[in-house]
Amino acid sequence: MRATTSPDLLALDRAAQDLLFRAARTANTFTDEPVTDAQVAAIHDLIRYGPTAYNGQPLRVLLLRSAAARARLLPHLSSSNRAKTASAPLVAVLAADVDFHERLPELYPHRPQARDWLADRATRVEQARFSATLQIGYLLVGVRAAGLAAGPMAGFDAAGVTREFFPDGRHEALLVMNVGRPGSGSWQDRLPRLPTEDVVQTL
Amino acid sequence: MRATTSPDLLALDRAAQDLLFRAARTANTFTDEPVTDAQVAAIHDLIRYGPTAYNGQPLRVLLLRSAAARARLLPHLSSSNRAKTASAPLVAVLAADVDFHERLPELYPHRPQARDWLADRATRVEQARFSATLQIGYLLVGVRAAGLAAGPMAGFDAAGVTREFFPDGRHEALLVMNVGRPGSGSWQDRLPRLPTEDVVQTL
Repeated sequence: MRATTSPDLLALDRAAQDLLFRAARTANTFTDEPVTDAQVAAIHDLIRYGPTAYNGQPLRVLLLRSAAARARLLPHLSSSNRAKTASAPLVAVLAADVDFHERLPELYPHRPQARDWLADRATRVEQARFSATLQIGYLLVGVRAAGLAAGPMAGFDAAGVTREFFPDGRHEALLVMNVGRPGSGSWQDRLPRLPTEDVVQTL
Repeated sequence: MRATTSPDLLALDRAAQDLLFRAARTANTFTDEPVTDAQVAAIHDLIRYGPTAYNGQPLRVLLLRSAAARARLLPHLSSSNRAKTASAPLVAVLAADVDFHERLPELYPHRPQARDWLADRATRVEQARFSATLQIGYLLVGVRAAGLAAGPMAGFDAAGVTREFFPDGRHEALLVMNVGRPGSGSWQDRLPRLPTEDVVQTL
């Protein structure tokens, strides 16, 4: 699809568009300013309204605030991600709760049988990963809505982080994300984005 | 984590918080008002700035505008999703391009070897699904940013939709989403959301 576009076709004002997407960037360095529990709670209180399959809300967030907890994470990161993670104001491990279905009678009360549809663990893992990843998308937007920068990192050993921080076997680590105010030299020029005609097709 | 929260801790103004999350709802009925290609392009132009692993941007969007295309979709939906999809102004199939790595030399030019890290198809499928799902999270926010309602549907046969619309073998359907202005009786009361103390833990 090739179409003329305009930010003015959006109901969201331009300042908010910039805050959340156009001017927001993945941060690689941070200032020392702390990210408080109250900020984290305000972000979660916003993004928890984002939709998930069966309203299952499988995302779980583990904040690594202690030096000991952070030290346990660093060996599981690619070497290029260690220094920035060691110095970020806040580091969060984002995981899916594979047993999210246990709460469906409460979260999806009009179809209590949904819990039984997810009795098979492999089905549940796939659903948990999908909805929790959607929620990570909302969370990234929410971090930016708080005026903070997110530093999501693909380069880490997910199985290792799962074993290290979720030995219960009911969670799967999906992403490690740094959060804070961007520091000096926090990013290079923005990388290219695909044009709409390469992404959107019409039948 | 249990913490006092306040929407005022966010930089995003309250009207935008409502538009994107607090007042926004998954729509089940729609008005007849069309969703134009220009609106779709404006939404994509906003959300394409959201981050993805290796800047790979694997999300692909197939708009089913013709009656014939929509008729091909309906048999793959759960029965409860058919009527609303038949009458929605716009129906989009959201898919991951499993061969997104082919464009990494252009999209991730400072590490052209990233394409070779993804030579293994199974690794690539996992990466494509993860980043495209993140992008679906951004897209849902973008639909709302356009003043429209999204109707994402978990109840569909993903393998069937993939075979029907992506016989090339390089795409995987992840979600079907209706888009439009909400019609009368578009939703019931909002389902409960998990409190922050059940989602966020601290180490």
